[in-house]
Amino acid sequence: MRVAVDVMGGDNAPHVEIEGAVAAAREFGVPITLVGDLERVKAELSRYDVTGLDIEFQHASEVVGMHDSASDAVRKKKDSSIRVAFELAKNGEAAAVVSAGNSGATMAAGMFVLKRMKGIDRPAIAQLFPTMVGKTLVLDVGGNVDCKPIHLVQFAVMGEVYARCVLGAASPRIGVLSNGEEESKGNELTRETSALLRETSLNFVGYVEGRDIFNGMVDVVVCDGFVGNVVLKLSEGLVETVGKMLRAEMKASLLSQIGYLFCRKAFANFKKTVDYAEYGGAPLLGINGVGMICHGGSNTKAIKNAIRFAYEYALKGVNDQMAEKLTESFPGARDREQEAS
Amino acid sequence: MRVAVDVMGGDNAPHVEIEGAVAAAREFGVPITLVGDLERVKAELSRYDVTGLDIEFQHASEVVGMHDSASDAVRKKKDSSIRVAFELAKNGEAAAVVSAGNSGATMAAGMFVLKRMKGIDRPAIAQLFPTMVGKTLVLDVGGNVDCKPIHLVQFAVMGEVYARCVLGAASPRIGVLSNGEEESKGNELTRETSALLRETSLNFVGYVEGRDIFNGMVDVVVCDGFVGNVVLKLSEGLVETVGKMLRAEMKASLLSQIGYLFCRKAFANFKKTVDYAEYGGAPLLGINGVGMICHGGSNTKAIKNAIRFAYEYALKGVNDQMAEKLTESFPGARDREQEAS
Repeated sequence: MRVAVDVMGGDNAPHVEIEGAVAAAREFGVPITLVGDLERVKAELSRYDVTGLDIEFQHASEVVGMHDSASDAVRKKKDSSIRVAFELAKNGEAAAVVSAGNSGATMAAGMFVLKRMKGIDRPAIAQLFPTMVGKTLVLDVGGNVDCKPIHLVQFAVMGEVYARCVLGAASPRIGVLSNGEEESKGNELTRETSALLRETSLNFVGYVEGRDIFNGMVDVVVCDGFVGNVVLKLSEGLVETVGKMLRAEMKASLLSQIGYLFCRKAFANFKKTVDYAEYGGAPLLGINGVGMICHGGSNTKAIKNAIRFAYEYALKGVNDQMAEKLTESFPGARDREQEAS
Repeated sequence: MRVAVDVMGGDNAPHVEIEGAVAAAREFGVPITLVGDLERVKAELSRYDVTGLDIEFQHASEVVGMHDSASDAVRKKKDSSIRVAFELAKNGEAAAVVSAGNSGATMAAGMFVLKRMKGIDRPAIAQLFPTMVGKTLVLDVGGNVDCKPIHLVQFAVMGEVYARCVLGAASPRIGVLSNGEEESKGNELTRETSALLRETSLNFVGYVEGRDIFNGMVDVVVCDGFVGNVVLKLSEGLVETVGKMLRAEMKASLLSQIGYLFCRKAFANFKKTVDYAEYGGAPLLGINGVGMICHGGSNTKAIKNAIRFAYEYALKGVNDQMAEKLTESFPGARDREQEAS
């Protein structure tokens, strides 16, 4: 069982991807296939001692850039590293794909090559957020801008299985992101989604608010990809700004500069808690395979952890459990939705 | 020109409201009318030295609770403090209303009693967010869950005037909140809103992402009230969680506890930057009058500053400028939208 790493897509490619892959192979014993321009990959890899590591190569002559359209990965650049990586997964030569490239293109390539899982209309990108008492999984944070209720229900099922199988939550609590906890709140989408979720076997707790993403009230939060993306970028931006503000204040006086030296470790621990690199990447849920989407600016640690999570995901057979949960959770809801639409 | 303060609505009413009102009268010379249960108001007020302050009373026998429906403020509780406060504004006995009560009820009462401004279909609640280089005004963060493009255009006009007249931005930059900066991103609502905004005389810069709310890239961000509410609650929750995480880390070792003592001032300055109490309340824009909505858990400082901003808002005749800008900004857009719908 190998992990195919698209080494050409990220902002600091292929350096960061290859360093992260070497680290994952060494620390976690993950068998790796590096996918990209063979000459560049070999040149970069020569900088590391890879003795005893299971690292293979697969040449890909093209790269999907950050400003290419998602469909370029599918239609035009057939020999792009991301497309080739998913082809390896399709052919059984890899069990998972990790990429720090254009996330829209990664999503499109994954869906095009591996196809959607049965029972899933819209694959979703799921992102982990740190809380005081664990982590909250939010989906979709990615591509699905205009969603129907049934899509959010499918997100909930996928999120439940991921939280249970990969994150270790016993009976994951599911919430629908809304503008208030009362049932009277929400918009058309959230109200219909709630009604459907109540009929499933999921541990659905109702509406949650923006603040609840960070207080550990639920394990899984579902929303459409527009709102999810705002949530993701807002959180990243706010943590970054808070960090900058604190640094500026710390530098403002000699006293606080001295104080900062004393609490440097506390700050480092805090940074580790909120650092996306600890979680690596965001899984693309709902395809027939495993895709892990990393931040374009990922560092080595993020790539390494993303490879580790992708490997675990594949090893644990999460997708099989998802398929099972999909049929068991809401046998009736799907048909009714289709009748209604 | 007086400010009517609903002293019954907040979580710590009437204590906090009255202390805040006394402080605003003393520090900024704002003439105040306290609206609420006369007996309780007088009992509370007797604890302060109000010599020389212009403070009047208006009795109101009812209170709209946090769990009452918004329409209760309008239909059932006609002698509620929030309703009576807006009646004072309607009769010219007050130029502005400040409340820390049920925000939905405040919005409903304001709209019902004072009516919507000509050219505005949906009044909006606007919230200030701190950045490294100033503040960003986001609207709507409140009541308007399912919006049409023309509503967001009206938000943009109101936000522009508020940013210019109250916050002092010379030529406020306006952004539409979206899931990416590229024109190809966004949902149906944001795409149509952008097309309309491009035809106005506003300084419209295009799409902004969640992170841009905190980096000072624009002065005004428009979105529907569902997304805006998620933004507001998420930001409050994240800042709170970050604070808790940092405190926990600081307490974890003696070294960092000592360090904390040295940088206490830096933390206090930081807290001041992100503290909502500095900005007081969120203006309800688009009614024929001035309404300032405060957090239910507002402290004295928040109430004081909200009264100050409400007073300035009224003094500067912001609503007249809004009316002017509305007709000048997009003479054509409104008609087209109406034809289309």
